[in-house]
Amino acid sequence: MIKKVLIANRGEIAVRIIRACREMGIETVAVYSEADKEALHTKLADEAICIGPAPSKDSYLSMENIISATIISGADAIHPGFGFLSENSKFAELCEQCNITFIGPDSKVIASLGNKQVARNTMMEAGVPVIPGSKEPVYDAKTGAALAQEIGYPVIIKAALGGGGKGMRTAWTPEEFESAFQTAQKETEMAFADSTMYIEHFVENPRHIEFQILADKYGNVIHLGERDCSIQRNHQKLIEESPSVALSDELRKKMGDAAVKAAKAAGYENAGTIEFLLEKSGNFYFMEMNTRIQVEHPVTEWVTGVDLVKEQIRIASGQKLSYTQEDIKLTGHAIECRINAENPEKGFRPSPGTITDMYLPGGKGIRIDSAIYSGYTIPPYYDSMVAKLIVWAKNRQEAIHKMQSALGEVIIEGIDTNVDYQYGIVNHPDYIEGNIDIEFIERL
Amino acid sequence: MIKKVLIANRGEIAVRIIRACREMGIETVAVYSEADKEALHTKLADEAICIGPAPSKDSYLSMENIISATIISGADAIHPGFGFLSENSKFAELCEQCNITFIGPDSKVIASLGNKQVARNTMMEAGVPVIPGSKEPVYDAKTGAALAQEIGYPVIIKAALGGGGKGMRTAWTPEEFESAFQTAQKETEMAFADSTMYIEHFVENPRHIEFQILADKYGNVIHLGERDCSIQRNHQKLIEESPSVALSDELRKKMGDAAVKAAKAAGYENAGTIEFLLEKSGNFYFMEMNTRIQVEHPVTEWVTGVDLVKEQIRIASGQKLSYTQEDIKLTGHAIECRINAENPEKGFRPSPGTITDMYLPGGKGIRIDSAIYSGYTIPPYYDSMVAKLIVWAKNRQEAIHKMQSALGEVIIEGIDTNVDYQYGIVNHPDYIEGNIDIEFIERL
Repeated sequence: MIKKVLIANRGEIAVRIIRACREMGIETVAVYSEADKEALHTKLADEAICIGPAPSKDSYLSMENIISATIISGADAIHPGFGFLSENSKFAELCEQCNITFIGPDSKVIASLGNKQVARNTMMEAGVPVIPGSKEPVYDAKTGAALAQEIGYPVIIKAALGGGGKGMRTAWTPEEFESAFQTAQKETEMAFADSTMYIEHFVENPRHIEFQILADKYGNVIHLGERDCSIQRNHQKLIEESPSVALSDELRKKMGDAAVKAAKAAGYENAGTIEFLLEKSGNFYFMEMNTRIQVEHPVTEWVTGVDLVKEQIRIASGQKLSYTQEDIKLTGHAIECRINAENPEKGFRPSPGTITDMYLPGGKGIRIDSAIYSGYTIPPYYDSMVAKLIVWAKNRQEAIHKMQSALGEVIIEGIDTNVDYQYGIVNHPDYIEGNIDIEFIERL
Repeated sequence: MIKKVLIANRGEIAVRIIRACREMGIETVAVYSEADKEALHTKLADEAICIGPAPSKDSYLSMENIISATIISGADAIHPGFGFLSENSKFAELCEQCNITFIGPDSKVIASLGNKQVARNTMMEAGVPVIPGSKEPVYDAKTGAALAQEIGYPVIIKAALGGGGKGMRTAWTPEEFESAFQTAQKETEMAFADSTMYIEHFVENPRHIEFQILADKYGNVIHLGERDCSIQRNHQKLIEESPSVALSDELRKKMGDAAVKAAKAAGYENAGTIEFLLEKSGNFYFMEMNTRIQVEHPVTEWVTGVDLVKEQIRIASGQKLSYTQEDIKLTGHAIECRINAENPEKGFRPSPGTITDMYLPGGKGIRIDSAIYSGYTIPPYYDSMVAKLIVWAKNRQEAIHKMQSALGEVIIEGIDTNVDYQYGIVNHPDYIEGNIDIEFIERL
């Protein structure tokens, strides 16, 4: 069993992992940048090691510094959280070479699933439906434009590596293609230091439905139902829920089977997520597989009762899955709202600064995953998400009422947040009706 | 359906009820004493009415002021919470006379169950096991001593009306009887303005096991499993959990059936709790029925998924139970620790004052019911319980680890609390083994 985990992350997910370790009797080592000396994860862990200056590339993205901190602290495993190095196959490989357990899949699996082209081919071979798209890497706009014509407009241009909405643009007509391609490629270079692009047919008004997977070292793979993450702004998820109103038991089984098939085809191990686009017709297409824990994992945890982070650690320790597919039942309904330090009235401009006063709701069916506290100064260097508010109730209607009530209680002073914006969404008639797709926010 | 509820209480339970109402689309009216102008319940409700000076008898116990506030605000129902007027049959009767829905059982049922003698007789007739005890009211020590001899030592002397550990003393030998009786009676007079006493055989080292009941106006009665509340100091519960390690499925069914029988025999309606003493032998005895929501209701809510406060409101509105007995399954394990503003090192002296800094844990399986916030001044007039920390995990061992970890995170500065004391209990080998009874704290 793993004895000491270094958490190569910050913010609420670092806190989430520290708590899971502590509950399992596992020692924890936090790493922090110079800007995160007062961060909650730095304070909560058993040990904390400074790994460099504030910019991510000098600290949370510095593989050398993180590996050094692991060796110095005597940790035998690294949990990468999400973002940062979590889907970097080179980092996972480095861990393997240094005899450190990387809490996630094998580096080769990360590499093949991280490359959209390879992932897509794997899924096609396994019989998992995919969206029509480019079969070879695309490096320039001219080649891309010709391919787009074949695939059929509208098309979406994406970074071949990477995710999270960065380096992604849609072209509705051939006239728009070149400019969209250039912008997407520029963003891709900046975000991932790579300029390989991928082009595919753009499915209109789909839902974003993703399936949570757990897989152990012994070939056992189960899914834990779906999350509907259709509420997105600029490809960034804002609200996620489980189950989805769009899935009948029959469709859930069909998509769940496809997700398990996808994970098996990839030789997957640990927790992962298969993202699908779901059309109104009921057709669904594999988009990508995320080889890490997701921001929105709490909604799955609440409807299934499974602690996904603990399962990740158990799997990485070589244990068999604690659950069979038959054990997994979705009970009630869970919704998560991401709370970001940003100003929706000023173009969602990030709003770092000091929290002068704070009150977060509690009580039945309320879960808060956050790394903020009254008096904490949010540094300007990192992602603007500062808290997640998750609710559970016996059905979707009650869960929505709970979220409305809970958002109404939140007080975070000293910075701007998107709390009122989220309140607006969960009070929108279309949201309440479950009439949502990934264009919901754009239509507002 | 009830449209507007006045909450005749304060603190975390008032906040709990306000949240339930808000989620149900019901308007809320808070009442507050002059000391509670800045209290959370006062701020959270849709309306708030001051009902008098700080001492409870002039505000939260003033039936006239509360009824007036109800009429003035146009509320059609009162939720009494726990403590204060919640088990006062005269108050319930007054509500009935004023055509205000009292969210609880009929005043006559409160009266008969509130009188331990009457309750006991009802249960004996219904075939629910009771502890050998006095059959008539006892007013003086001499009569009491003679009865104690018949019943068999050790005996416990209690207030015939009332509860919560006030007016309760144990006499182990005839020599101790008179002094114990006098003290108990004095406390009874002060707490309940009544001097009627009740004497019964003292069951040694039992567990306190209570069953949660829901009953509607149509004769449907179900139980929601047990709570083990054996961790008590001076008859005040400190830690509660569900399920109890002491109950096999068979014993749970037997005790649950007895609880349902008890509620039916009493003609009970709404949420209520049957308290039993459970001997190591597996014999159990009816102690009393609490005709209100309990402090420890969240542990039942978490293992069953049922929202007890919402069910109370639905039942009072004339709806049928949302659940049948077959719907109720206990899933996982929940534990609650009461967080009190008191100093365990100075004889548990209450510690009111201003909270200068506060951090409460969150994340998976953590629920906090509280009415405190950073900057809030806890007034010296009321109960010292200021928060409840509730955890849930898939089994008892994981739940204990979660509670240990969560208590370790709590920061409440400016006042003294029992957090470290609770931390000591949940780390005690006997507690961890589940080797507990109501003398656990005394043995420490």
